[in-house]
Amino acid sequence: MAGKSPEEEHPVKTYGWAARDLSGVLSPFKFSRRATLEDDVRFKVLFCGICHTDIHFLKNEWGFSTYPLVPGHEIVGEVTEVGSKVTKVKVGDKVGVGCLVGSCRTCENCTADLENYCPKMVLTYATPNFDGTITYGGYSNEMVCNEHFIIRFPENMPLDGGAPLLCAGVTVYSPMKYYGIGKPGSHIGINGLGGLGHVAVKFAKALGAKVTVISTSERKKEEALNRLGADAFLVSRNADEMQAAAGTLDGILDCVSAKHPLLPLLGLLKYHGKLITVGAPPEPLELPTTPLIMGRKLVGGSNIGGIAETQEMIDLAATHNITADIEVVSIEDVNTALERLAKGDVRYRFVIDVANTLKAP
Amino acid sequence: MAGKSPEEEHPVKTYGWAARDLSGVLSPFKFSRRATLEDDVRFKVLFCGICHTDIHFLKNEWGFSTYPLVPGHEIVGEVTEVGSKVTKVKVGDKVGVGCLVGSCRTCENCTADLENYCPKMVLTYATPNFDGTITYGGYSNEMVCNEHFIIRFPENMPLDGGAPLLCAGVTVYSPMKYYGIGKPGSHIGINGLGGLGHVAVKFAKALGAKVTVISTSERKKEEALNRLGADAFLVSRNADEMQAAAGTLDGILDCVSAKHPLLPLLGLLKYHGKLITVGAPPEPLELPTTPLIMGRKLVGGSNIGGIAETQEMIDLAATHNITADIEVVSIEDVNTALERLAKGDVRYRFVIDVANTLKAP
Repeated sequence: MAGKSPEEEHPVKTYGWAARDLSGVLSPFKFSRRATLEDDVRFKVLFCGICHTDIHFLKNEWGFSTYPLVPGHEIVGEVTEVGSKVTKVKVGDKVGVGCLVGSCRTCENCTADLENYCPKMVLTYATPNFDGTITYGGYSNEMVCNEHFIIRFPENMPLDGGAPLLCAGVTVYSPMKYYGIGKPGSHIGINGLGGLGHVAVKFAKALGAKVTVISTSERKKEEALNRLGADAFLVSRNADEMQAAAGTLDGILDCVSAKHPLLPLLGLLKYHGKLITVGAPPEPLELPTTPLIMGRKLVGGSNIGGIAETQEMIDLAATHNITADIEVVSIEDVNTALERLAKGDVRYRFVIDVANTLKAP
Repeated sequence: MAGKSPEEEHPVKTYGWAARDLSGVLSPFKFSRRATLEDDVRFKVLFCGICHTDIHFLKNEWGFSTYPLVPGHEIVGEVTEVGSKVTKVKVGDKVGVGCLVGSCRTCENCTADLENYCPKMVLTYATPNFDGTITYGGYSNEMVCNEHFIIRFPENMPLDGGAPLLCAGVTVYSPMKYYGIGKPGSHIGINGLGGLGHVAVKFAKALGAKVTVISTSERKKEEALNRLGADAFLVSRNADEMQAAAGTLDGILDCVSAKHPLLPLLGLLKYHGKLITVGAPPEPLELPTTPLIMGRKLVGGSNIGGIAETQEMIDLAATHNITADIEVVSIEDVNTALERLAKGDVRYRFVIDVANTLKAP
């Protein structure tokens, strides 16, 4: 395949929007996708969420981006073709693809339904696939994907508001389950009410936990309590409030992606409490060990979720009418949306209406 | 009691060595202990280990020391008197007292045999007890203690080499059990081969784990492998060795008490691995969140252990002939021993021969 252009390397002509360099500016792009293999599902993209990770990739902030780069890993669409061995879905079904389109399927993690920790996992975009070609994401007219990585979209799940759950939803759901901090009788703190945090509140409530939102200002208090259903709200810059809440939380899901102090959060935890970070701050955080030792507390991480867990999450979301709060944009407005997202100017996720706004170049 | 001198506040005259100020220099000291209550055990101190914590307290490095200060929380002795309700031991039995002589006995932690996380726990020295008097430790001729906090010393356990286990032993044993990193089939790293680390190697082997010692130099390699029984040895400053061992450990018990980088240690962990700190570095450590997130790893802490777990630890040690490697010193040499300990000049713990060297002032 090496040497062929993106438009020629595969038989099926497709198109989307791509960044050509680390300016990260997206513009129309013609490329191609593989023909449908026997265990592949092909689908027309209807909606695609914009994730903060897209910005990191577009600007090569993690150092392994390749251009042209078509982002998008919160993809929802309608099946147009299935390979001869596909059993999971049929033509016309609504499906989703999240952050992964491949993994080795044989390692310890893969066999434990933890494809998201497979050392050979293939990300949905900007990653070499097993055939040597680079993956392109959901800011495009169609996708083709091995059925194992296809998520069945429940009937009653809105396609637009459901799309961000494929990344943001499972990112917050998986650690609540693994670390046992989102369950009946548990009191969980959600630090940071953004794209991840607002979904985390909804899942924590659905899982039966008591939820306290922790934010730097009063600004989102009304919304957290009255619209999202949180039980309490803490302003992290209010020392009196923080002191009064010391030692009350079983766990905290830390959704903040900027550098921030851990000490006040550790102080909110009960003995044996767990602070789980999913926000991926770019710089190391300061970790005081005394509260860890004296309170037998821990700081852990978690990265999205496996395919079975993603299905479990989306099924639970359908049952509890959980969707992301979104602003739908056209593909023409994607660069503006990315700029606004970088400034935190969205409540809470952008979703591109791909089917109605993406035109063939 | 307030206003009475240490020698007058209780009816039983006792003596030991105390620091009078934050120079931390110890010298002979006369004080007193309470009469034997109905659930108290009184014992003649035979040996007392010197713990690194003693230095922190002697120099008031944690800010809550009170003087005069009699250190010592690795105390072994022979019972001389028991209260009318005592059932755990009888006169003549060998017993130990570790870091705790009291706790509330009613809170969630106490009722779960986690007295070591009771917010009202009473440390063995330099701490206000429930009667308002200050506790004095084992650098003294005798102790009196509620039987709940008494550890029965197994018949075959050497009294001198067993003493340090009351703090160092349970400090490393408890997290191996709680975090599940010391068990058959597990591969554990022990970072830092000092007072805690050398005992950790022995317990990890006794618990059936494969053990890799991590140290800054080759200096202790021979000893770690051939005398302590470790399975492998890694020099943390050797980038090639560290790279070759990347992703091989299920857990690491981090016994290093100086500031040190966590990133290389996190790199040694398998996916879902656990790095547990018990060394209590005085400054915060740098915590990179990417390895936590991408590998679902965690950094946790642990503080000594509960009374039941301390008994379990000492019984296991007796079964497996585990003792600390010690250098026995006389009480006259205690200041020199403390200086040497501060410089790391001991393999691996000092124990004071109290019975044979402490004279009445």
